[in-house]
Amino acid sequence: MSFTVRRTVRIEWGDCDPAGIVWYPRYFGMFDAATAGLLEAAGFPKPAMLARFEVVGYPTVDTRAKFLSPSKFGEDIVIETAIPAFKRSSFEVLHRVFKGDILAIEGFETRVLVKRDPATGGIKSCPVPQEIIDALMN
Amino acid sequence: MSFTVRRTVRIEWGDCDPAGIVWYPRYFGMFDAATAGLLEAAGFPKPAMLARFEVVGYPTVDTRAKFLSPSKFGEDIVIETAIPAFKRSSFEVLHRVFKGDILAIEGFETRVLVKRDPATGGIKSCPVPQEIIDALMN
Amino acid sequence: MSFTVRRTVRIEWGDCDPAGIVWYPRYFGMFDAATAGLLEAAGFPKPAMLARFEVVGYPTVDTRAKFLSPSKFGEDIVIETAIPAFKRSSFEVLHRVFKGDILAIEGFETRVLVKRDPATGGIKSCPVPQEIIDALMN
Amino acid sequence: MSFTVRRTVRIEWGDCDPAGIVWYPRYFGMFDAATAGLLEAAGFPKPAMLARFEVVGYPTVDTRAKFLSPSKFGEDIVIETAIPAFKRSSFEVLHRVFKGDILAIEGFETRVLVKRDPATGGIKSCPVPQEIIDALMN
Repeated sequence: MSFTVRRTVRIEWGDCDPAGIVWYPRYFGMFDAATAGLLEAAGFPKPAMLARFEVVGYPTVDTRAKFLSPSKFGEDIVIETAIPAFKRSSFEVLHRVFKGDILAIEGFETRVLVKRDPATGGIKSCPVPQEIIDALMN
Repeated sequence: MSFTVRRTVRIEWGDCDPAGIVWYPRYFGMFDAATAGLLEAAGFPKPAMLARFEVVGYPTVDTRAKFLSPSKFGEDIVIETAIPAFKRSSFEVLHRVFKGDILAIEGFETRVLVKRDPATGGIKSCPVPQEIIDALMN
Repeated sequence: MSFTVRRTVRIEWGDCDPAGIVWYPRYFGMFDAATAGLLEAAGFPKPAMLARFEVVGYPTVDTRAKFLSPSKFGEDIVIETAIPAFKRSSFEVLHRVFKGDILAIEGFETRVLVKRDPATGGIKSCPVPQEIIDALMN
Repeated sequence: MSFTVRRTVRIEWGDCDPAGIVWYPRYFGMFDAATAGLLEAAGFPKPAMLARFEVVGYPTVDTRAKFLSPSKFGEDIVIETAIPAFKRSSFEVLHRVFKGDILAIEGFETRVLVKRDPATGGIKSCPVPQEIIDALMN
């Protein structure tokens, strides 16, 4: 069983569209914060993690979400986040959003750890440190 | 061959994160605008479409995106959008993002046309008008 | 002394720009949520407040912010919010943002309570209920 | 008379809140893009400008906006942007938003040009190059 965190997120007026429900791109912003929150809870707050392992981030290369039930401003959702699998330089993140007992969204992200690439001036993937894997897969 | 539109989008400073590349939730915002743009180009600008067919919107119930190549602020991307398939009350939207000749992102949305549901005070799906299908599938 | 609330806000990766500091429009989103939070703490959660007083919102008609010190992702800020003054159908909101002991931002919003205007199909201002004034100015 | 640019911006569904009008923080995002657009039109596209003058950006230290008339999704606004004044390391930006002939918003930004500060690891202000002033104040 992988390390899992839960956070309650208040749906704000500015998260919602003229239909009164969350504008779906907002959920991905919440997922991005939840991923950082999971890593922080495991001992790797983002600024320190980037500095220590000399990485520039862990951009998303693949993502999917199934929106099963809409949410409205003023409601609270609970985002449950875990990393069910690591590969050499990438990892899967699973976000399950609940409204009370109802599963409202299932979201998936595939993220790749990247470093600066001096050869190109761009970025390139790098191995996920074993220490991170150990903390998340305990 | 379904009706297809292309739009050029400038990547702005505010679209990008501390790594200097687009923060991925922003792309879904661009996709949402591109979907509205496609429908408008087919004769259905969103305000008029909602009023005429008495719908409250076409929320996304499933979405996926593969991010193949990152973009930076100051760059232009071209989003090519089409609706390859309609079902009774839903439709698929395909977004392909190009940087020059390079396919940078493949995005998919499944959207459902919804009306107010007087019985619950919420929303419920409704059939896609044939007129919209005809305009998009010509 | 008017009723005052404080909330801690984590600066997220997606709040920040390529310079690594908060992209300033994000602060206004935080202020909008803080205004709703103040009203909720005073007994008027937004959905209930809109329903009960038959208003559609309290849009901002004037705003100003002085950004005295930047913040970076991973940092926490404290937003201290109060409504120092009410007029007939508008009110002032003051947001003071602290990083530790440092005053990082001073923000001001003038907001107007609005109802649907059946005559025009648009919105029009309406008086702020005395009950709201009493709760906030105690 | 300072150099002035105009851009038409489509108000998108995702720019609007449950009241059906633009959520005001969005306007500041449009202003930020309009400021970059003005500088680009004057010969200084942002990525090239940052690289050439070795600056990290021109963050906003003071901003104000008066919202005179709301806009709805599907509407087009015109943002007229100019830099009426330069100081040593800062400049004022004026954004006037029109819907047809109606002045809908007046926005102001004070921006400071900043460089990395090796002494602190943070950022510090630096003089605006005369070349930029000349191009904008012609």
